[in-house]
Amino acid sequence: MSSTRTEIDSLGEFGLIEHLTRDNETRNASTLLGIGDDAAVIDTFGKQMVVSTDMLVEDVHFDMVYMPLKHLGYKSVIVNISDIYAMNAEPTQITLSLAISNRFSVEALDEFYSGVMLACERYGVDLIGGDTTTSPKGLIISITAIGEVNENKFVTRSGAQENNLICVTGNLGAAYVGLLLLEREKKIFIENPSVQPDLENQQYVLERFLKPEAKHKMIAWFKENEVTPTSMIDISDGLSSEMMHLCKQSQIGCTIYEEKLPIHDETKLNAEKFGIAATTCALNGGEDYELLFTIAPADFYKVKDCPYVTIIGHMDKLEDGMHLITTGNNRIELKAQGWNSIKK
Amino acid sequence: MSSTRTEIDSLGEFGLIEHLTRDNETRNASTLLGIGDDAAVIDTFGKQMVVSTDMLVEDVHFDMVYMPLKHLGYKSVIVNISDIYAMNAEPTQITLSLAISNRFSVEALDEFYSGVMLACERYGVDLIGGDTTTSPKGLIISITAIGEVNENKFVTRSGAQENNLICVTGNLGAAYVGLLLLEREKKIFIENPSVQPDLENQQYVLERFLKPEAKHKMIAWFKENEVTPTSMIDISDGLSSEMMHLCKQSQIGCTIYEEKLPIHDETKLNAEKFGIAATTCALNGGEDYELLFTIAPADFYKVKDCPYVTIIGHMDKLEDGMHLITTGNNRIELKAQGWNSIKK
Repeated sequence: MSSTRTEIDSLGEFGLIEHLTRDNETRNASTLLGIGDDAAVIDTFGKQMVVSTDMLVEDVHFDMVYMPLKHLGYKSVIVNISDIYAMNAEPTQITLSLAISNRFSVEALDEFYSGVMLACERYGVDLIGGDTTTSPKGLIISITAIGEVNENKFVTRSGAQENNLICVTGNLGAAYVGLLLLEREKKIFIENPSVQPDLENQQYVLERFLKPEAKHKMIAWFKENEVTPTSMIDISDGLSSEMMHLCKQSQIGCTIYEEKLPIHDETKLNAEKFGIAATTCALNGGEDYELLFTIAPADFYKVKDCPYVTIIGHMDKLEDGMHLITTGNNRIELKAQGWNSIKK
Repeated sequence: MSSTRTEIDSLGEFGLIEHLTRDNETRNASTLLGIGDDAAVIDTFGKQMVVSTDMLVEDVHFDMVYMPLKHLGYKSVIVNISDIYAMNAEPTQITLSLAISNRFSVEALDEFYSGVMLACERYGVDLIGGDTTTSPKGLIISITAIGEVNENKFVTRSGAQENNLICVTGNLGAAYVGLLLLEREKKIFIENPSVQPDLENQQYVLERFLKPEAKHKMIAWFKENEVTPTSMIDISDGLSSEMMHLCKQSQIGCTIYEEKLPIHDETKLNAEKFGIAATTCALNGGEDYELLFTIAPADFYKVKDCPYVTIIGHMDKLEDGMHLITTGNNRIELKAQGWNSIKK
């Protein structure tokens, strides 16, 4: 970041928006009109549109002490487009609204926007609108993501059926362990600012928290291999919480196997240091942004060779409830203790 | 409002959303999937989509001292769908995100939502998604409005041409005068809470501020009468500011006539009491949510009989600049001093 500090007031609202979006490019033919009018216009070419929105609040969803602004911008986009992928759709546009306190300079916002722009570029998404205003306290980010999907190819949370296989992309619990590390270092820093952070051999889990990626490859794989999941959700609040949503909305039960849970070695190592079971991190840690989905048994032979996927269990009758079979072969009830920004 | 106070914590995030949206109805066939999944799904039936977003921040955009929560919910929707109408489109869906401090009870949010739902009902709009989270301070509202428009029938700010006529719906400056009255009463109340508010004969201007309506009738009229404006914008920051946007984005100048400005009698009366010229309220007062648009001269004979419209001037060459011809026949430069939430 440059050491210059330009006050936001000096540009005014319209000047600020022009400044922040000066390098904004259009990548989708569907974006007919972007930033700068009362609204943006999207051509739909006969496809269906998918819309999702998220609000991120400083000191509730992110901590500026360890979240660099560029990463925050990047992650804000990822969090939203992850919801679009979770519908089996492709993200195409976002709108971005910010409420900012005068603590932030134009240069700080430039950093934030550079992260937003980078995510847009990587995922082929157009920034088409937004609103920028003042906040009496802290930074508030609101993003609405729009995507497209071929007619009736969208996948909801409510289509899972008995005997469907439960699949998850990537690995679980890493972002939560990354967060624990950052919280620990923050505490040490506050107590003694001269101590250098001890973040060696923890790059993977930190990156999973600070700079998550959305699972676009999975959606492309579904298309190529002509597989349509019966239900799907992205993992933002932890596996247990998302399983609960799938079971509740599909009116069905489930069994998952502890030994099948994909957990990265670095996650295991660090969870152990904190004295927490890695399984707990996988089940209840949030912000993985992996995809959790169910498939019909007939698709097993395709999915088993997909490099992104682990099959972790199967759906049961509603009356069987939700269960975890532990490594020690105990059958315990699965409870959602996922991250929840309102209920403590 | 009921006198019960239910803490938001007691419901949890998902419980709160379920509670608040329990009476939510779907009005548009295009709304394939609403609240309750990772994203909503919209069928587009070959139309183009229009998307706009706005963020409203407590103590920046609204003051809870004189803004009842139901009105605030209603107005939040109007502010957004007004942008959709300003594109010559019909609003069809909104998403609503809230960041709320624990100062608000569930009952208070119910009041807010009842206003949101009422606006949705009146304007035929579906609430299809959102996010509800905590705020360390105050209330922050972010709404994204989606609309539809027939292929290439959308109207931007940039199509005005020389000799086009400048038109405005309804009347101007009333909301600003309403705000001045409420600010005055707030000050009196703070100084002496026992003084009863003196708000007689001011119902119209107060309602214009507290419960504005969007100009959907104008859009319906355009369709019926086969008129397409050459440019259009909604008046949220005052006539001068919006004229500046049209002129800048159309690369053109303008002349407007003071004597033509439509101003309600109650606006004039109250402006006089405050010692402000009514013209100043019309030019620089914000939040009217009227539509400002330009038409080709050939459409004059249609528009002159439209009951919602006043013709207030015409577009000039770029080099002629922006001018106001006063009632006293002076030609003065028009400067935008509209409300701006960032620049003081």
